[in-house]
Amino acid sequence: MGITLWEIVALAAGLISMGVAAYFYRWVMAQPNENPEMEAFSVAVQEGAAAYLQRLFVALGGLTVVITIVVFFALGWETAVAFILGAVFSAAAAYAGMYIATRANAKVAWAARTSLVQAFPVGFNAGAVMGLAVVGFSLIGMTLLYMIFDDADVVLGFSFGASQLALLAKAGGGIYTKTADIGADLVGKVEFGLAEDDPRNPAVIADNVGDNVGDVAGMGADILDSYVASVVAVMILGSVVFADVRYVILPLVLSAAGILSSLAGMYFVRPGSNDPGRALNTGTLATTGVFIVLGSASVFALGIDRPWGVILPAIAGLLAGIVIGFTSDAFTDIDQKAVQATAGAANSGPAIVIIQGFSYGLLSIVPSILGICVAMVAAWMLAENAGVPGTYGVSIAAVGMLAITGMIMSSDAYGPIVDNAKGCAEAGQEDEETIAICDRLDAAGNTAKAITKGFAIGAAALTVLALFSAYAETVDLVNLDLLSPGVIVGVFLGGMMPPLFSALLMLSVGRNADRMVTEIRRQFQEIPGLLEGKARPDSRRCVDIAAQGALKELIIPGILALVTPIAVGILFGVAALGGFLAGSIVTGIIFALLMANSGGLWDNAKKYIEDGAHGGKNSEAHKAAVVGDTVGDPFKDTAGPSLNTLITVMSLVATVFGAFIARFSIFSL
Amino acid sequence: MGITLWEIVALAAGLISMGVAAYFYRWVMAQPNENPEMEAFSVAVQEGAAAYLQRLFVALGGLTVVITIVVFFALGWETAVAFILGAVFSAAAAYAGMYIATRANAKVAWAARTSLVQAFPVGFNAGAVMGLAVVGFSLIGMTLLYMIFDDADVVLGFSFGASQLALLAKAGGGIYTKTADIGADLVGKVEFGLAEDDPRNPAVIADNVGDNVGDVAGMGADILDSYVASVVAVMILGSVVFADVRYVILPLVLSAAGILSSLAGMYFVRPGSNDPGRALNTGTLATTGVFIVLGSASVFALGIDRPWGVILPAIAGLLAGIVIGFTSDAFTDIDQKAVQATAGAANSGPAIVIIQGFSYGLLSIVPSILGICVAMVAAWMLAENAGVPGTYGVSIAAVGMLAITGMIMSSDAYGPIVDNAKGCAEAGQEDEETIAICDRLDAAGNTAKAITKGFAIGAAALTVLALFSAYAETVDLVNLDLLSPGVIVGVFLGGMMPPLFSALLMLSVGRNADRMVTEIRRQFQEIPGLLEGKARPDSRRCVDIAAQGALKELIIPGILALVTPIAVGILFGVAALGGFLAGSIVTGIIFALLMANSGGLWDNAKKYIEDGAHGGKNSEAHKAAVVGDTVGDPFKDTAGPSLNTLITVMSLVATVFGAFIARFSIFSL
Repeated sequence: MGITLWEIVALAAGLISMGVAAYFYRWVMAQPNENPEMEAFSVAVQEGAAAYLQRLFVALGGLTVVITIVVFFALGWETAVAFILGAVFSAAAAYAGMYIATRANAKVAWAARTSLVQAFPVGFNAGAVMGLAVVGFSLIGMTLLYMIFDDADVVLGFSFGASQLALLAKAGGGIYTKTADIGADLVGKVEFGLAEDDPRNPAVIADNVGDNVGDVAGMGADILDSYVASVVAVMILGSVVFADVRYVILPLVLSAAGILSSLAGMYFVRPGSNDPGRALNTGTLATTGVFIVLGSASVFALGIDRPWGVILPAIAGLLAGIVIGFTSDAFTDIDQKAVQATAGAANSGPAIVIIQGFSYGLLSIVPSILGICVAMVAAWMLAENAGVPGTYGVSIAAVGMLAITGMIMSSDAYGPIVDNAKGCAEAGQEDEETIAICDRLDAAGNTAKAITKGFAIGAAALTVLALFSAYAETVDLVNLDLLSPGVIVGVFLGGMMPPLFSALLMLSVGRNADRMVTEIRRQFQEIPGLLEGKARPDSRRCVDIAAQGALKELIIPGILALVTPIAVGILFGVAALGGFLAGSIVTGIIFALLMANSGGLWDNAKKYIEDGAHGGKNSEAHKAAVVGDTVGDPFKDTAGPSLNTLITVMSLVATVFGAFIARFSIFSL
Repeated sequence: MGITLWEIVALAAGLISMGVAAYFYRWVMAQPNENPEMEAFSVAVQEGAAAYLQRLFVALGGLTVVITIVVFFALGWETAVAFILGAVFSAAAAYAGMYIATRANAKVAWAARTSLVQAFPVGFNAGAVMGLAVVGFSLIGMTLLYMIFDDADVVLGFSFGASQLALLAKAGGGIYTKTADIGADLVGKVEFGLAEDDPRNPAVIADNVGDNVGDVAGMGADILDSYVASVVAVMILGSVVFADVRYVILPLVLSAAGILSSLAGMYFVRPGSNDPGRALNTGTLATTGVFIVLGSASVFALGIDRPWGVILPAIAGLLAGIVIGFTSDAFTDIDQKAVQATAGAANSGPAIVIIQGFSYGLLSIVPSILGICVAMVAAWMLAENAGVPGTYGVSIAAVGMLAITGMIMSSDAYGPIVDNAKGCAEAGQEDEETIAICDRLDAAGNTAKAITKGFAIGAAALTVLALFSAYAETVDLVNLDLLSPGVIVGVFLGGMMPPLFSALLMLSVGRNADRMVTEIRRQFQEIPGLLEGKARPDSRRCVDIAAQGALKELIIPGILALVTPIAVGILFGVAALGGFLAGSIVTGIIFALLMANSGGLWDNAKKYIEDGAHGGKNSEAHKAAVVGDTVGDPFKDTAGPSLNTLITVMSLVATVFGAFIARFSIFSL
């Protein structure tokens, strides 16, 4: 078919993204930091992060070798190459993000000595390195593979490679961060009475590394995973449903338009009015506006014959993403009823805090599910009315939603960077005004994070629905009859996976935290002068335990995620596997929302009390709220965020091996 | 078609059941109790229970009038009559059960002065009144209606009537019992330092009434609901799929065989060896054995032309019910790892208890879901291999599982009766040996309760799957395509219902407990001499508040349960409604298992510590475990048990109004 102009445009957009990321990288690295204590803190976190990434990449390498062999024999060398490329590119994006994030923190803090207006761009530009690297690597990888092999199924291998890293990074990072957090608290704070971030505590560095591991590398891998999967799903649908290559490369072109729009949007991110939260929101809204124009124009320029049948669904998806993002924090917002009612419940003790928060968490599922349903129905109808198949419309809605990932991811990565900056400022004993500026930067980061969280779940939902359609096309399912017993059994088994996966991860945190506690106690006993501040702790060993344990604990849930879909397909057939995916999507999204939102709610209920309500810090109500916050930690940082990735990986496994499974099914119920 | 011999047999079995229930009733009522303090305690609980039932029946009456009018205009007078009959018959069964349960408690305690062998039959026979009334009323009602109207769709109205009572009784009872429990604890125990069951506490009677309300009336209504629905689903499938009346009356005949088997099984319930738990299990196993013989014989006698195609699925269902029942308590058993690990986690504080218990609760979903899947696949294959349609086989499996309800329900109702007997013995200041005997009776009751809980969830799952098939037949769904957007949206919306319903019920408990707390404080302030024991509290007012609040709080969730299926059907069509039911079934069963099992696990972890582990009562670990237990209370007693009923009611609403909905759908996606 030859290489079209549009593939070159997509490749160019990817390269521009990488170029701007490189520019921002050099700019951020050139920013000064002259406080040696902040530097030492930053270097320790850098070393810890590097140690973690090293272990993660070794594990990833091993897994990649195994899966590559399987993919090679089942699907051929082209898909195997794409798979390796997907793993390597997404690992590179995660590495770049972590690298800059762990170096920018001290620079932001140093700039905050001057002013907020000076400090903000350091944080944002560092975040933008991550955001632009994610979309750049993704688009370059997918476009190159399609240019070379001219086959959407090969590009699917790239998505699978990216997704397996996301599973490791997200779930492993989730276990890591809570292992370090709980370990540092239980021994350091409770047994030895040390303050948060006390440098004598051997787990403090691991704890700070954990924040970056979960929020930068984990979230980056997760969003990259959805971004790539949504594009690939549309490519597959495009190549099966239409006999027209333009429908196949359309998602690449829309992604290119999204990258250019994100770059334009970043131009508007300036805290002129001294309000960094508003600056970030302005950037997101500007990106959205530019993308609507640029995306529509590129659809017309591409010569799609039913342009409105793809433009309107894409816009519907994008708007739904924005709306879900901005409304989903109603249940976790410190100024709203749910958080304040839960804080009030703290007066009746910890049990009532848990019951209230959990109830509101259950309730918080409703608006997001309704939003996803509205987006889906709207995209379907808008497509069908214009003569485009509804499944293609829904999948394009996912691509539309994720097109502005460059901007969204940049704002999100900004969060942990400025959060760490505050830690640096405190470690470096900067004055109160500097710390206050860091606080304001951090508050803006929290708002951005809340929006991204809702956006990520909405995007994952539409993406897995798109993958679900791609799976059905791949295995030639004309319909998927919920009245057949195989499909029902599939739905039950799939529905069981997210709670099972969550349970395994949360139990892993408990076991790994135990190992950490033992090590911390050992150091205090065996290192003379540690408690007196005369000797340095062996932080590296704690970092290692957290990392090693996290990856070891991942073996069983990882195998479950990769093997169960194949087992269900081989046992009960492709229809049952379709039911399995549908079941996992529904309960996966429900549990992801429940855990993310109840966790966020408990966190803010505690903060609300710390701000002075119900007796403030150290009151009985505060103690009760701390219990809620601790319960919420593995909910929101370990199990909840991993579920997006779980359902994406399972859908990808099913789609990648679909044809293979169809040949070897034992029963077909 | 005329009335067949077999319909008369079914009616006769129902009448025999009622006759034996009447005999047991007179026998129990003739048992003595000569301790006036026990009598006073028992009378107070009787009055409280009567007050609650009165309010419940007023609410039921109002709701019945409204729904009857709707049913009358939508479906005709026959179904309206059946609906009223279903409501009245199930209310009568619940009333009979509560009546005898609240009178037998003191008689059991009095008999325990003599010996366990003397006391056990008083408790069991009282429970058997409930068990036999449930199956008797059900079978008489369904058989009579079928004799008169000769139309399975009319009998469906009976099931709907029974189900709406079950929703009120189960969810209302769940709110009631936790309102009273939390109110009594928060003010009585915490503020005034009174002991559990102190008669000065105005809410103590309400608390004791609550146990009967939830465990006797609630569980009875729930099991009756499933029992009737499974029979009706098979009747509908039988009349649509086969042009043969024998397949329609088969479930009535199997139920008749089940009643006779239960009566035979009860003959074996004798604590000869002084082991009441073993006596109950012997009864269950004997009933199972007799039913396999009697059920098979009746299938042959009925002249079903493919006998093994129904006998084997029925046996598969029955065995699955027994296995799920006996294994489901592995996660809640005090002698097993999950409970003991959670108790161990109490050493690290309440948050870790919650995380561990919740994780094991998530894990506990797995064996039951696998059991349900195996039962379903086995029943399907056994039926199809014998030439009977698989859907009919799965539905017959539900009937087979529920056939022994008479025996199962009798063992279950025994539990709260002997539990209350212990309360009576303590209130009546009986000697230690008597209390020890009551304790042993109670322990057997707890085992029976754990088995029934698993059995109830397994039965509900198969029943709603049967109803799901009946719904599909009713609205002529040839297939239910999970790839169509309407069905996907339906699955998401249906999947959202159980968490939403749980959230509303748990928030209701919080609000209603607040009202109770205010009233208890008022009484201590305004009634002179109450705290000194010189004046009696106004217990009736507390009972009233719990009852009134519970039913008031039910309005929104009740309307949601009844109206949402119709709204989804009218908006998006019958296929979307099918998806809605499927979604609600999957998440309903998952959340029901999660909440019931984690609640039971926390309860037993606390008991394990109270038995002496980790420092025993009043240790720090105990305090942490109490937090877990309190969180588990609304999980296992309010939200969890209501979900069975929710999904049954929604399936029934869809089936009853299916034809109506099909005519008025707006969109059909």
